[in-house]
Amino acid sequence: MSTKAPIEFWFYFTSAYAYFASLEIEDVAREAGRELVWRPFMLGSAFEVTGARGLSNTPLKREYALHDWDRIARKRKVAFELPPAHPVLPIAATRAFYRLEEESPDAAVAFAKRVFELYFTQGLDTRDPQAVAALAETFLPGADILAALSSDHYKRLVRQRSEEAVQRGVFGSPWMFVAGEPFWGWDRLPMLREWLKSGGW
Amino acid sequence: MSTKAPIEFWFYFTSAYAYFASLEIEDVAREAGRELVWRPFMLGSAFEVTGARGLSNTPLKREYALHDWDRIARKRKVAFELPPAHPVLPIAATRAFYRLEEESPDAAVAFAKRVFELYFTQGLDTRDPQAVAALAETFLPGADILAALSSDHYKRLVRQRSEEAVQRGVFGSPWMFVAGEPFWGWDRLPMLREWLKSGGW
Repeated sequence: MSTKAPIEFWFYFTSAYAYFASLEIEDVAREAGRELVWRPFMLGSAFEVTGARGLSNTPLKREYALHDWDRIARKRKVAFELPPAHPVLPIAATRAFYRLEEESPDAAVAFAKRVFELYFTQGLDTRDPQAVAALAETFLPGADILAALSSDHYKRLVRQRSEEAVQRGVFGSPWMFVAGEPFWGWDRLPMLREWLKSGGW
Repeated sequence: MSTKAPIEFWFYFTSAYAYFASLEIEDVAREAGRELVWRPFMLGSAFEVTGARGLSNTPLKREYALHDWDRIARKRKVAFELPPAHPVLPIAATRAFYRLEEESPDAAVAFAKRVFELYFTQGLDTRDPQAVAALAETFLPGADILAALSSDHYKRLVRQRSEEAVQRGVFGSPWMFVAGEPFWGWDRLPMLREWLKSGGW
């Protein structure tokens, strides 16, 4: 199993489809016997290339997405309540993720799952350093996180990840790669599963 | 069965995802015991509202779509060759569809399937009145089709259908409705099937 390529799970923290995918992606990896790599990034870099404005800022798409998210949440029986300020920039949450990852990838993943849950059920402010540091405190002292959030190192790291995403063709969230094969969107998890099961086609 | 709402299949003739959906949608309807209504429309009206430019005219999305279409075609074992001039405006094909539908919905559907097949395997010019009339001649005399293609009645009808689509929230192709419930995209056919089977949730 260790020679199989990992599943890369690229996502924007305040993307609802990424939230739903985050609830399934670990099962997908486990079933396939693959390592899972979580890769939060900032979608803005991709939107500059595609000219997209994000679902919630696009007429027609916004109304469909709101309806669709509730429909998915009902089906999956998961809590879902869009924050009034949605979409909130997840810049602090994303920087904190990479700070945590340097210490422990497992801690970073546990943090990421909490960010998704609290943003999409209780309106966590993913821009707010204090709120993000408080959430990360289970894993690292708040002062450490706060220092990371304003350091050039993590600003640069998040920018690099986001540019890497665009260079590899990513323009939406969630996005999965397996050995370079791209899968865009929550609704492609079944295809990803089939790809992994069959070895591709 | 006759009291169940039909499946409305809205599509843009030169949308590759609509082509793939057209190959499955009749099975979906049959399994569900539902009538199927084919509704070609012009996507431009929706793009004016959303600001989208179409997959093939959007950086990053274009490259992903090209890769994805080939991947779907391989999986479904269907012929697929994008015309060099893709995306071609399907205005003549769309008007001809509605001319045929007035005579016989079955003939219009048979014509629609031929348009998809010939556009996506042999580069049918869906803008060209002569090519479209020749294709429709199995069902109606070429002179009848040619007259319809330049008549105000069918121009208006296609415009009305396209405006109706936008008013009902349609911004992409393919798009399915069942009793008002919207499903966008080829990759939502499994959800549509589940919705029909379970009665919704």
